[in-house]
Amino acid sequence: MAYDTIRWKNNRVELIDQRYLPRKTRYAICRTDKDMWGAIKAMKIRGAPAIGIAGAYGAYLGIRNSSKRTFGAFKKELDKSIKYLASSRPTAKNLFWALERMDSVACKNKNKPISDIKNILLEEAHKVLTDDKKICRLIGKNGKTLIKRSSNVLTHCNAGGLATGEYGTALGVIFSAKNKIKMVYADETRPWLQGARLTVWEIMQEKMPVTLICDNMAAALMAKKEIDAVVVGADRIAANGDTANKIGTYNVAVLAHYHKIPFYVAAPVSTFDLSLGSGKSIPIEERSPEEVKMINGVYITPKGALVKNPAFDVTPRKLITAIITERGVIRKPDKKKIGKVLGR
Amino acid sequence: MAYDTIRWKNNRVELIDQRYLPRKTRYAICRTDKDMWGAIKAMKIRGAPAIGIAGAYGAYLGIRNSSKRTFGAFKKELDKSIKYLASSRPTAKNLFWALERMDSVACKNKNKPISDIKNILLEEAHKVLTDDKKICRLIGKNGKTLIKRSSNVLTHCNAGGLATGEYGTALGVIFSAKNKIKMVYADETRPWLQGARLTVWEIMQEKMPVTLICDNMAAALMAKKEIDAVVVGADRIAANGDTANKIGTYNVAVLAHYHKIPFYVAAPVSTFDLSLGSGKSIPIEERSPEEVKMINGVYITPKGALVKNPAFDVTPRKLITAIITERGVIRKPDKKKIGKVLGR
Repeated sequence: MAYDTIRWKNNRVELIDQRYLPRKTRYAICRTDKDMWGAIKAMKIRGAPAIGIAGAYGAYLGIRNSSKRTFGAFKKELDKSIKYLASSRPTAKNLFWALERMDSVACKNKNKPISDIKNILLEEAHKVLTDDKKICRLIGKNGKTLIKRSSNVLTHCNAGGLATGEYGTALGVIFSAKNKIKMVYADETRPWLQGARLTVWEIMQEKMPVTLICDNMAAALMAKKEIDAVVVGADRIAANGDTANKIGTYNVAVLAHYHKIPFYVAAPVSTFDLSLGSGKSIPIEERSPEEVKMINGVYITPKGALVKNPAFDVTPRKLITAIITERGVIRKPDKKKIGKVLGR
Repeated sequence: MAYDTIRWKNNRVELIDQRYLPRKTRYAICRTDKDMWGAIKAMKIRGAPAIGIAGAYGAYLGIRNSSKRTFGAFKKELDKSIKYLASSRPTAKNLFWALERMDSVACKNKNKPISDIKNILLEEAHKVLTDDKKICRLIGKNGKTLIKRSSNVLTHCNAGGLATGEYGTALGVIFSAKNKIKMVYADETRPWLQGARLTVWEIMQEKMPVTLICDNMAAALMAKKEIDAVVVGADRIAANGDTANKIGTYNVAVLAHYHKIPFYVAAPVSTFDLSLGSGKSIPIEERSPEEVKMINGVYITPKGALVKNPAFDVTPRKLITAIITERGVIRKPDKKKIGKVLGR
């Protein structure tokens, strides 16, 4: 890898500021939980697994300078920081999962000195990152088997190394299946252009063939039988398999269904939210209208225009051929199969 | 109307340069057929009926300074100009239709003095423009009956006054049904952003409620039952009803079909090409990769990225609920019904 999505260095978090890619490789520095909240909110770092990692480090940053001497008082500070970080973005489950993991590790070590608990929390954040890197390789390995020889594969948004610790979920599958893929098609993914800016850049670095298309071109390619499979990531998966992912994913899923093309979701187990029966309960973030109305600082529509800007949509399980996790592939996902793989 | 899409003034053609809308209302001047060719090619003027009008004026500009004294010699110059103008853009039928109309009028008046034929050709170009304005009103009137009370209507690209002499085809229907429409949703329509730049601007001028969305958001709105009908324009319609229109139209048609939402195409009779049995034979323009790779002069992807940029796609007739023409509504279009309305 020529870059680190997120790393611990010089006693602070450095993360590649994805707003400037691919034009500039600039690292943003986070010294406090406030810095991290801002980095997640502004999408300096994005992608469900990556903001999980960011959240874990953020929680440590939130308490590392705590002067509290009792676990109770310390825990109150940790809770406050976790609650604060959880308010940065509402949809990706991985953020809440990572924050819960930090909380749980603190509780497990409540009888240790506060200075030790602080160190344990930093180690846990490191572990969230290193675990994620391993998980992505496993997802890639499991997903590889689903890709047929000489395939053209479409992906939407960016579920690559930049959305994870490294390697990626959907792109992990694509990288693992490199020898079987003729062409990767990348949806540009308006409004934030993660596909154009990040996915194309990542795939070119891996020396794989990639073609950028506008989101509205996928259907025409499918009609010409130029797409053999679709692989995307996920931000939250309900107990029944309904999947929230970047806006436009549901669009692609309907198109794939109509054209009888397999549609795969690649995500770690930490993306599942078994507390939600279906996708209807997944909270969908609505972001600023200016993200749609302005590109590179210039208005592309009348300033006073009304805009919708949901950051995610929900793909019902029936449109999903399989969900690829680090624990295996869940074909035709439903509550029972998911519960089994997740150990419930 | 606060603007003219295209007008004859001071012995030259003035057309609103659509590349600068909505930020600047700047008119481009065409004094020669070369000017007009460039204006069509660069999309200073676009939209099938509008480039038909532009082509008609272009043919006049091509011969108005002819010094030929025999019809044969004059006709050769006209033919050359017509052939040249026809090479500007390949998909919209209206351009070829208008050029044929100019050719035919010249031939009908072959025995008149050349100076008279020149005047007749200018009058014919005026007539293509004034006819188009009337046709759009009729399309609006015919289409209005299809829109139900309290509808939210989605449109893609721009088939408004800017794509025609005035008033529009798809937007003509929407303007005519104004009292029945709660909200117009406008797809931004990448890569050229006709929806964001032109459609939103036109609808706001008509004081109708309009909401801009990215192309990939339509499916999510449909799933929430926020779209009651789709109306789009057309660039070329084959004898069987298959319709070429702006890239992404087929995408929307598949989504509308899946969500059981009526999908209407609004177009003048001059958009039909009865010489083509189906949409498979419609030539699809592939435009410059830079249109996708750059926005407002800034690269949104690595400079070396591969890109597909088809300007149009083809929606098969089976996905079209009805085609709305100035001669009436063709429900469930097929070769027989279309032949009947077109008088074949």
